[in-house]
Amino acid sequence: MKVVITGGCGFLGQMIAKAILKRGELRGPDGKPAEVDEIQLFDQLAPVTPFSWADKRVTTVAGDISDKATVASLVDRDDVSVFHLASVVSAGGEKDFDMAMRVNLMGGLNILDAARARGSVPRLVFSSSLAVFGGPDLPKEVDDWTRHTPETTYGMTKAFGELAINDYTRKGFIDGRTVRLPTIVIRPGVPNAAASGWASGIFREPLQGKEHVLPVHDGFYMMLLGYRSAVEGFLAVHEAEGAAIGPDRTVCLPNKAYAVAQMVEALERVAAEERLKLGPITRERDPSVEAICGSWPLKMDSTKARALGCPEDADLDSVIRGFIEDFL
Amino acid sequence: MKVVITGGCGFLGQMIAKAILKRGELRGPDGKPAEVDEIQLFDQLAPVTPFSWADKRVTTVAGDISDKATVASLVDRDDVSVFHLASVVSAGGEKDFDMAMRVNLMGGLNILDAARARGSVPRLVFSSSLAVFGGPDLPKEVDDWTRHTPETTYGMTKAFGELAINDYTRKGFIDGRTVRLPTIVIRPGVPNAAASGWASGIFREPLQGKEHVLPVHDGFYMMLLGYRSAVEGFLAVHEAEGAAIGPDRTVCLPNKAYAVAQMVEALERVAAEERLKLGPITRERDPSVEAICGSWPLKMDSTKARALGCPEDADLDSVIRGFIEDFL
Repeated sequence: MKVVITGGCGFLGQMIAKAILKRGELRGPDGKPAEVDEIQLFDQLAPVTPFSWADKRVTTVAGDISDKATVASLVDRDDVSVFHLASVVSAGGEKDFDMAMRVNLMGGLNILDAARARGSVPRLVFSSSLAVFGGPDLPKEVDDWTRHTPETTYGMTKAFGELAINDYTRKGFIDGRTVRLPTIVIRPGVPNAAASGWASGIFREPLQGKEHVLPVHDGFYMMLLGYRSAVEGFLAVHEAEGAAIGPDRTVCLPNKAYAVAQMVEALERVAAEERLKLGPITRERDPSVEAICGSWPLKMDSTKARALGCPEDADLDSVIRGFIEDFL
Repeated sequence: MKVVITGGCGFLGQMIAKAILKRGELRGPDGKPAEVDEIQLFDQLAPVTPFSWADKRVTTVAGDISDKATVASLVDRDDVSVFHLASVVSAGGEKDFDMAMRVNLMGGLNILDAARARGSVPRLVFSSSLAVFGGPDLPKEVDDWTRHTPETTYGMTKAFGELAINDYTRKGFIDGRTVRLPTIVIRPGVPNAAASGWASGIFREPLQGKEHVLPVHDGFYMMLLGYRSAVEGFLAVHEAEGAAIGPDRTVCLPNKAYAVAQMVEALERVAAEERLKLGPITRERDPSVEAICGSWPLKMDSTKARALGCPEDADLDSVIRGFIEDFL
């Protein structure tokens, strides 16, 4: 079978592709395990040279997800699954509303329609976000019945994606599943336009001896999940029986809130163990970052995810150790 | 100022237009009362001869709401308000998914973008529905924090409309307000493709000596609001101070659930008073209608609407009497 990953050249897209390569098979539209012979990474830009981790099963395609024909051409087999990760992110969407609508909303519909057009009812895993929630009156703990109250256009388009996944699945067009993510850490590479970027940077930069400029105060809490658990969560949700997910196709991955002070403590603890010299963390509060990140909940009920086998992190220390092992 | 009403040739659109004609003025984009010198009714079909109730302030335009240029041409003044009622309805959307997406979702975005393009931050009142809720696990009483769980494509697109109204307003593009309606009764004329159509037909047909074929059982409950109260609700929400509505722009109009048996009793009571001979009600249950209507809640918290001055019905008898007065 073929696997299409939109936003596939991004961090999570690559990690999911690597995990699928290692696993070798996924459940196809008929629910039976099938060998994965092709993984297509679709993104706005493709790398000039193949990814070092990729083998001949992996191809990359650059294109515009808001172009219907381009997206339709990706889903060119009946034995196919889609991981839809492509998205303009939170702060990026606040800067360019029209791009967020074009990429997230129209692009999302394009990939849903491409999967629908196969007729084989492919599995499609959509990446949603805690940013579907927001606002001063939001309960700090949310569950599967909490209304979507996004405070960013990013979150609004993610909320729409969840609605569309449920409806396309209800209609029998696709076998959609939504993975609703807390803030995923520790992202390697350079910062992206996500307002939550500092929650990776606070670990990533000091671990590489670089300075991190922290835009939030030390008592600030963020709901986190390590990327290894997130990737396993994506695959568990893809592999789950549809009936175990139910008519609401959204699965909130496990998550835990940490204060900045706890992040710094864990970082210093692991650095001491590993005898790493940390770069400095300097403080420069950014009200727009605090406003966006502060509008998010601190706990999402993840009972369903755990029942489906989505792992949680042992602790923050293990997330940091994993990052050192994978990237440093 | 100008008022554009999409779906303006439909029942509610016409009633709102008549109420505005009578009132003579509405609050403009600057919040100050302004004389309404033009009401444009936009719909998929326009009447051959002008509506009997209309005067020279009223024009009708037929067109396709999914055509961006057509919709942009309607909102051709800065001193403008929009009532966006155009929609494929519940059972209609279940029959034609693509039309529901094109009209409700793309059409909705077109009218929002047309209002946004003015730059004057026009008031735009969007007509949403109890159909944003659904499913076997839905609480029978919902409030402003209950998650949208639509069980129809119609409801899904209405849920998206609520999200979009909130986001366009948050961005300062428009001054959007959503009126979330229970089932509105008693609609005159011929039945439309709404699954809830019987809740008007059960009164309308017998009152005109005709047979009504009831598709639900006698113990079935529906959450209703009379059209006179609904029209007043639309205007109250349009006129309200933005701050009184808050960042969540959705206002659930007052509503009350009645069993079919209570509807029949009220009908017979009023008919006896008015010495009307009723046509017969025959029973022919339709599982698809019971499934759609049965997925809706029986009570929506309408605290906010009442604070904004949206009226509730005195009782069902007065709704029936109003219909007789207005249409028979």
